[in-house]
Parts: sequence; structure tokens; C-alpha cells
Amino acid sequence: MSILIKNVLHSFRNEKVDIFVNNGKIEKIEKNLNLQADKVIDGTDKVLYPALSNMHTHAAMVLFKGYADDLKLMEWLQTKIWPIESKLTEEDVYWGTKFACLEMIKTGTTLFNDMYWHFDGCYKAVEEMGMRAILNAVMIDMFDEERQKFNEKRTLEIFDRYFNKNPLIKVGLGPHAVYTVSAKGLKFAAELREEKDTFIHIHLSETLTEVEDCVKKCGKRPPEYLDELGVLTDKTLLAHCIWLNPSEIELLAKRNSIAVHTPVSNMKLAVGGIMPKRELREHNVRICLGTDGAASNNNLDMTEEMKISAILQKWRNNDAEMPNAYDVVHRATEGFRVLGLKVGKLEEGDTADFILMKMHEIITPMHNPVSNFVYAASGTLTDTVICNGRVLMENGYVEGEEEIKENFFKTLNRLFNLT
Amino acid sequence: MSILIKNVLHSFRNEKVDIFVNNGKIEKIEKNLNLQADKVIDGTDKVLYPALSNMHTHAAMVLFKGYADDLKLMEWLQTKIWPIESKLTEEDVYWGTKFACLEMIKTGTTLFNDMYWHFDGCYKAVEEMGMRAILNAVMIDMFDEERQKFNEKRTLEIFDRYFNKNPLIKVGLGPHAVYTVSAKGLKFAAELREEKDTFIHIHLSETLTEVEDCVKKCGKRPPEYLDELGVLTDKTLLAHCIWLNPSEIELLAKRNSIAVHTPVSNMKLAVGGIMPKRELREHNVRICLGTDGAASNNNLDMTEEMKISAILQKWRNNDAEMPNAYDVVHRATEGFRVLGLKVGKLEEGDTADFILMKMHEIITPMHNPVSNFVYAASGTLTDTVICNGRVLMENGYVEGEEEIKENFFKTLNRLFNLT
Repeated sequence: MSILIKNVLHSFRNEKVDIFVNNGKIEKIEKNLNLQADKVIDGTDKVLYPALSNMHTHAAMVLFKGYADDLKLMEWLQTKIWPIESKLTEEDVYWGTKFACLEMIKTGTTLFNDMYWHFDGCYKAVEEMGMRAILNAVMIDMFDEERQKFNEKRTLEIFDRYFNKNPLIKVGLGPHAVYTVSAKGLKFAAELREEKDTFIHIHLSETLTEVEDCVKKCGKRPPEYLDELGVLTDKTLLAHCIWLNPSEIELLAKRNSIAVHTPVSNMKLAVGGIMPKRELREHNVRICLGTDGAASNNNLDMTEEMKISAILQKWRNNDAEMPNAYDVVHRATEGFRVLGLKVGKLEEGDTADFILMKMHEIITPMHNPVSNFVYAASGTLTDTVICNGRVLMENGYVEGEEEIKENFFKTLNRLFNLT
Repeated sequence: MSILIKNVLHSFRNEKVDIFVNNGKIEKIEKNLNLQADKVIDGTDKVLYPALSNMHTHAAMVLFKGYADDLKLMEWLQTKIWPIESKLTEEDVYWGTKFACLEMIKTGTTLFNDMYWHFDGCYKAVEEMGMRAILNAVMIDMFDEERQKFNEKRTLEIFDRYFNKNPLIKVGLGPHAVYTVSAKGLKFAAELREEKDTFIHIHLSETLTEVEDCVKKCGKRPPEYLDELGVLTDKTLLAHCIWLNPSEIELLAKRNSIAVHTPVSNMKLAVGGIMPKRELREHNVRICLGTDGAASNNNLDMTEEMKISAILQKWRNNDAEMPNAYDVVHRATEGFRVLGLKVGKLEEGDTADFILMKMHEIITPMHNPVSNFVYAASGTLTDTVICNGRVLMENGYVEGEEEIKENFFKTLNRLFNLT
């Protein structure tokens, strides 16, 4: 399918162009392109931006957005989140994930890296929505051998059923964290990852307690412990990465692992520290951005995450120059490059994952559209979304959204008597 | 004029109600109100929130949004902002302020506290837009006696022309800061404020350099210095308030002055510290929120400022419980109470400054609409804005907005060749 977008403001060039998309790629960017296309979109009064990648989330947790705010992390998990999660059915997760995809599409994200229960529900939802994702089979065994064995069995079944089934969806492994998964479980994940050449997505050094407990229990801090079990490679996505010391930053660099910065969740849950992003960059560690689940953010809007990550790191570095807006867009599109896709600068030959945003007072004037994207925009201004050369949203409308909303509300009603 | 809003979700009650507005007040809140009104608004699929107060900004600086980002504070001011500001005409500021008002209305703000050049242009713009504001006559003399005398003359002229002219616009004094205004200038402002019973709006302790230079020059830190000159009273709005020590917090409490928290600007410009909000609250100091100018934010969206202030303070306090969403809405509406108006909880008898937001995936589900306002919303979802019982925006449209945009772009074209 080919698409021709006429007269759109190219954010990186800050000039009006036409864009021709064919076979999933941006084939041509020129003024006044005279080409036939299956679909023509009028880009007048719209700005062309790259699509964003949300590299740490738990999509279906949109069900719990605003359900339990302003609580301490452990109280939040133990008294609110875990009890309600234990009641979730696969269908709940299916509708939750569909709704989360809707929120992500509506705010300009086409790729996300997930970790949640009820894999079948997640997979079906993402496939139907036409988005890209890394869906990771969750493993939590709480150091119980029976649960660990059960996890192995379930994970292998998931791989049998879904691995390499859909080119947009990568199936990976989601051992939750060092404090919830046994060494045996982590080793199993590392080995299966090698065999399948896929990703591991794990939480790392989010709180000081996690680090201290790991030292008490294993005699090592989490990164060293994970490395000994073979978890750290260039296919490891490490969420949070807050409490890292200099030798751990070097270790991540040596293994070429990927750190995922989640500033909003970290600040909202008051984890105390900040990811040492500058030091990680100085060691050439790849860095992505993520929102975390909507229960601790409370939205999945990556433009907001860009802004907050930028200003938090400037403030931490005591340097208004670093990072700059271009660096931040690079981080927010890094997920595509992790998957080997060229997305981020809107050049000819790039994979066609991009969005059009409506002009609005909050992103006007256009001295620098890239700067506006990071510091002024809201994802809610997204009007049109293209993923892999296919239209997922046009004029703010996603096909089938009424049905998704209706069923999402039914699910909420069943779980919480909330309509 | 009376307005009846039917079937809207009341954010604090989390239930659908009708709202009857008359003579600038919320007269009745009930289900199924059967009353005649001059205007009826359908609130279906909309959420009722209080309007917000932006208590530190330089509105016309929307002209420079994105013009000079990612620079150090002094480089930003000296090489970019001040040179271009010196070229501004009154008409430029008039259209800049009108456009800023448009952005504020479109994102749910009906009151702002401003400090900018070309007072006549600012005043005319705000009056025409029908918003509330405290407009403060800027004073910068750089310790030059001639300039100080000129400031006195100009300020008195402004008061002659505009003081008490419009019930929605309070005319106040804007001596810029201790490093830009002489003691004589500050004293003049303090005395005129007493005479007129109005406000002083001043920057305070934004950077450590400001504090150190003040100590070097005057032998005192800025709060003590200002207090000796009579500047600190219960009618003093102090923007930033970052580098405060415990005795200065006590001093602010004693004088009942008002601290304005501006987290986004402070982080973006990398001023290093954070306002000690918890300590100020412990001393019952009144606290407002503000965006600062759009050149250092880069938008005027107070919902974003609410979220960032909340998560930054939780993180700083190392306490996920504090502040909570209700505290934050209270701060974001404190500006109204500074003016003696009851706005913030949407109760019968309140002054009718409120907004309706469109339902959107990013603020769904409605476990807690107040929580959604602070942690999930974007101001761009604002659909309808009522200020002092008058409709400023309906269905996302502000009367006359085309003309404002056209002239704003003409101004940008003249100043920057930007269209």
C-alpha cells in the first residue's frame, strides 16, 4: 500500500514537504511530489514527527489508572495492585491491552515493550491493533520451585504458540526482577533467550531496598548477579536503572545492554534516586524511554515522558544544555533501533512509523518544531498515525474504537462497579 | 447571564450533575435541575474541573517559544532573549499577550499573574480576552538613578490610567528582582503598593548566584533585604523561592507572603535546587503554581505544571503520599483565593471559574477524576471555559481566534521572518 502526504511541516527540516510512503518505507520526501498513491492525506496545518517507542510498560494496567494514587510503593503494590491483579481474567487483560494500545496510538506511539500476565490476551490485542511490540512472558516464582517449573512450562508454550508468528510482534522473556525470580528462573530465561535470539525485559535497581536485599541474599548487587547468570547481553532491556554505581555502568556498557529511563514513575513512586543518564551516555550505553504502567504514571503519553526526562536530567546535570531536544527524540525512538529499524529523523529510506500532529496554540510558533515536540507538545494533539506504512489512525479516529471503549467499560464495571 | 450545564461529571464528587450558573456564581449543583437559563451546555462526555491560576508568567514571551532552548540561563538571557526583547513594540506585545491568553484559555486557565513590558499592550489584550489577571508594571533600573526615576514616572502613569478600571484585572507592581532593581526602586514599589493596596510580583532566590551576589552587595540574603525595604507583606507574590534557608521560610510565614512554585522552568534552566515546598507548607506559607514564560517552559499548560510539581515534590520528599492530587489542585487554584475568590472545589456559592474537559483515553477510566486531572490530563483536552460566569470558550472555539492567530503570525514574520 502506498500513501502520499501533501504539504506537511517536516519537523526536522522545518519546511513544508510531501511524503511518499511505499512498502512500509518513506520512499520520497520532496516539495510538490507528483505521484499516484493508494491513499492521499492532506498534511496542511499538521506537523510530521517520528512515531515514539515506549520501552517499559505494563499496558493492561490502564485498568488501574487513578485507582490507587499517592501511596508508598510497597503499600500500593500489596494493598491495591496485587489484590486486584489476582482477579484479572484473560479477557480483562485483552480489553485492557486494547484500550492501552488505543491510548498509545492516540498519543503517537507505535512500538511498546510490555510485561504482563495473560499473554494470550495481550498478544491478541496487539495483533488486532496493528502496533509493534515486544511482548514478554512474565516470570515470577518468589523462589518457589513449583512455580518456577510452572513458569518454564508456560513460557515454552508461549514460545511454541507465538514466536515469529507476526513480524511486528517480537516475543521475549519477562523475568520480573531479582527479588521475585529465583536464580534458576533467571538462568532459564537467559538460556531460552540465547536459543531464540530474542529479548529479556527485566526491572533493575529501581529501589535501594532491592539493591540492599540482593547484597544480603546473594552477596552481590543486582547487575553483577544478573551478569553471572547470563542475563546481561545486547538483548537485555533494563527498566529503571537508578541505583547504579560506576562499575555497574561499565558492566552495562561492556554487555551493550539497554537501559530504560522511566522518570515519571520513579518520581511519582518516590524511589529517591535518578537514573545516571549522563554517565550511561558517556559510556555509550543505549538508553530508551518508557512510561511504566498507567497505574504509576498515570498516562502512556511519551511526549510527556520526553519533556520530563529532559528537564529532570538538565536539572540533575546542573546543565541547561544537556540533554538537548534532539538527544531526547533520539532516546524516545531508540526502541525502533533496538529492533533494527531506522526511525527517528524522518529521512528517505526510513521505516514508515511516523505521526502527524495538529497545529495547536501549545506548539505554536514553529521556531523549532523538534523543540516544540519535546518541551511544548501533548501527545493528545496526534491526528494521524502510520505504523509500518499502514494507517492506524486518521483524523483522530481509530477504526473500531467504539467497541474497544464499550468493552473496556464493561470490564471496569465487572472489576470495580465502575462505568 | 445564566448558564445551565446538563449531565456533566463533577470531578470532586465523581458523579453526573447539572450546574446552574448565575451572576458569576455557581448557584446550584444537583441532578436533573429544572431551571431556565440564557444558555444551556450539554456536559455529556465531559468532566467538570475548576479553572486554574497561573501565578507566574510573562505572557507575551509565547513569541519566543522554542526560539532559544537548551542554553544556560545567562547565555539564554544575554545572547537571545534580551536582544530580541529590545526590538519589541507595544503592538507585538499586544498580539503576543492575546495569543498567550488564547493558549491559556485553551488549556484551562482563567487567571494569570504577569510581568512584562509595554503595559498598555498587555492590558488591552487581557481586557479584550475577558480573562482575570494581575498585571504588574515592570521595573528594572540596573541601579541607574535616571532609569529608576523614569520607572517611577511610568508606573504612576500606569496606575493613573488603569488602576481599578476593570474588576477582572488587578494592576500591581513588578520590580523584577534584587539584582535588577535598586533599593530606591524597591522602596518606591513597596510604598505605592501600600497606598494602592495592591500586589508586588517579584522573582526571589531563583539561583544561588542571585543569593551570593546579594550577600556580597548588601550584606544580606534576598528575603531579609526585601523585608527591610518593606517589600514582604501578605500582598507579595514571590516567584521561584528555591534557595531559602529555614529562617527565611519563617520570615515568609511571618509576613504571610505567597511563594510561587515554577518547577518546569527551574528544571529546564537547571537552576540546581528545588523549592522547599514541604517546609513552606509546614509553616503555612501560601503556595501557588506558575509556568513562567513560554520561552523557558515551553507551554502555559497548568495541568502539566500540576503533574510535574506533584511528582518532583514526592521524589524530593522521598514520600509517594505527599503531596496528593487534592493538595496539588489546591495549589493550582490558590491564585483565586489570593484575590479573595472561592474557586477550587466546585461547590455551590463558588465563583464561576471552571472548565469542561473532553473525555479522552488519557483520562480514562474515572476511578478518580481529580487524580486524572493532576497525573493524566493534558490541558489541550479543555473544551469549554467559564470565567466569572461568562463563556470564554465553547466546543474548543474562542471567538475571534482566527484574527489573533493571523496577527500573531504577522508579528512573528516581522520579528523573525517566521510564518
